[in-house]
Amino acid sequence: MKAGSKTKGARLRIVLEEDGAIGPGKADILDGIRETGSIAAAGRRMGMSYKRAWSLVERMNRAFREPLVSTSRGGHSKGGAALTGTGEQVLALYRRIETEAERAVEPELGALRGLMAADPPPPTK
Amino acid sequence: MKAGSKTKGARLRIVLEEDGAIGPGKADILDGIRETGSIAAAGRRMGMSYKRAWSLVERMNRAFREPLVSTSRGGHSKGGAALTGTGEQVLALYRRIETEAERAVEPELGALRGLMAADPPPPTK
Repeated sequence: MKAGSKTKGARLRIVLEEDGAIGPGKADILDGIRETGSIAAAGRRMGMSYKRAWSLVERMNRAFREPLVSTSRGGHSKGGAALTGTGEQVLALYRRIETEAERAVEPELGALRGLMAADPPPPTK
Repeated sequence: MKAGSKTKGARLRIVLEEDGAIGPGKADILDGIRETGSIAAAGRRMGMSYKRAWSLVERMNRAFREPLVSTSRGGHSKGGAALTGTGEQVLALYRRIETEAERAVEPELGALRGLMAADPPPPTK
């Protein structure tokens, strides 16, 4: 997830990445499921197909010792979904890591920003 | 760049990202230029075309108050290249941020890893 700084003009973010287990998109999906109770709704608000959202959930569930998300009708249905205890734990840890990392590097980020042009070029990929 | 943990089995990394100014790939290019004295060589060792490497350098140069990379023949030539004082400073700050961030979240990363399956699925995008 993006630990986007709230500083005006800040254009740096710290991203905790992982191939498979957890990462920015997956953490957002967990947040979405937590708030909407639905994998489809969680995906939708990220502009993501149900299939894609489901595949992220499946991958997370396999990557941890215990599933992070439980579905009321199980399997590939569009029934309700909720975070398991492990899911809550993983999401909280992930968000805490973002916050701690951001806090730890505040001085260096400030120095880096101070070197940046006042009017940066538009973002590109 | 990847502040990849050296822990065996660790699959998490902290990435400092920025749209335009500096990010993992750009920091690696700076490292490459620093070590090879050439944009082409820096790109090559990352499996990147000269054009792509040059475009990253150009973007960095515009994103900061002062250029990060100077070229001996200037412009789009394949002549020698070197980091400017600002370039050295930005690269050092970027790497320090990675190290500090990783250190700050070591306990939480450990907890997260402890929840991961022993035999994770192969990485996918």
